[in-house]
Amino acid sequence: MAEKDRKDARQRILDASVSLFSRKGFAGVGVREIANEAGVNLAMISYYFNGKTGILKEIIEQFFNLYLPIFIDADDPGKTPEACFRHLIRKIVHFIRENTDLFLLVYNEIPLDVPEVAEIKSRRIGELLERIGSLMMRFGLDPADRAIMAVIGPTLISATLAQFRLRPVMHKIFQVKPDEKYYEHYVDTICTLFLSGVAGLRK
Amino acid sequence: MAEKDRKDARQRILDASVSLFSRKGFAGVGVREIANEAGVNLAMISYYFNGKTGILKEIIEQFFNLYLPIFIDADDPGKTPEACFRHLIRKIVHFIRENTDLFLLVYNEIPLDVPEVAEIKSRRIGELLERIGSLMMRFGLDPADRAIMAVIGPTLISATLAQFRLRPVMHKIFQVKPDEKYYEHYVDTICTLFLSGVAGLRK
Repeated sequence: MAEKDRKDARQRILDASVSLFSRKGFAGVGVREIANEAGVNLAMISYYFNGKTGILKEIIEQFFNLYLPIFIDADDPGKTPEACFRHLIRKIVHFIRENTDLFLLVYNEIPLDVPEVAEIKSRRIGELLERIGSLMMRFGLDPADRAIMAVIGPTLISATLAQFRLRPVMHKIFQVKPDEKYYEHYVDTICTLFLSGVAGLRK
Repeated sequence: MAEKDRKDARQRILDASVSLFSRKGFAGVGVREIANEAGVNLAMISYYFNGKTGILKEIIEQFFNLYLPIFIDADDPGKTPEACFRHLIRKIVHFIRENTDLFLLVYNEIPLDVPEVAEIKSRRIGELLERIGSLMMRFGLDPADRAIMAVIGPTLISATLAQFRLRPVMHKIFQVKPDEKYYEHYVDTICTLFLSGVAGLRK
């Protein structure tokens, strides 16, 4: 088999898994089903990932390899903290819109009986929280106040995602149309809420 | 079988299911496993719930029957909106602490291929969002500004939960000890963040 085909097979397994896991949940999908959907031999899954858990681990790592740089790039010492924050939120919302299924999958799937998956998620989410923490220090929040730092980061990560988790409800209750104009107003609202909120915490 | 035993069997099935679903995910648990854990005959599950989906639906309804009254009770016209809000957050955090497994289960489990479960969740979360909306009107936010209303509610619901979803990470990164004192400071922080944030949106 040519090198290119092998790479394709590996990525096809990952793509098929994201699609299946996000529809049926991690526990609801078997390796045979993944192999069928990806159009590969069952043995390929063992060869590349050593089973279903290996696939999930790789999906999570790939996801954070794309997500973390958004937080790193946003924290630009040449810009005001406000400008960095607005840039960060805009980029996060754009990223979630482009990768909603993947996002909800990584965020939702916590197989508590698979410690190695929990370990990866803890480590990678920890990296995000540290980045948010450094940005918050630029707003004058005290990094020694762990209770404040421990609230802002998780709240921010959840807040930007809530919109997408609850999208079906949004339509019904608020009659919002998730178009370009809505998301612009949404980014502004989240930014004002947090920037005013953080200013209130600093007092 | 006596009426009391029948009731016990029904509740035992629900309790066993919460425990199993929250550890293994909805898709990862079979009815036979539930019957074993609950110590009931397999036929009982069909009799009471018409299968696994029926159990999940009942768990979700029971959960919201406990959770929604917190939002209703908190909105007391005799108190200032600030006092109502602080009371609400305190009660929510207390409720999540007492029912963490159940909370994460109801929040996480979105079997997208089971429309009747999605329908119940949409309807019940909609009830919460409407309650938060009325409280926000008391802060002077414009209920016609759907984009603002659609942000505050979901953000608040997610924010109070984020702390519990990410508890293992919290320990590691922030060295916080989730005791009485921490949660008091946590409630204060969330309240200040939101109350200052909402004041910023009103401007």
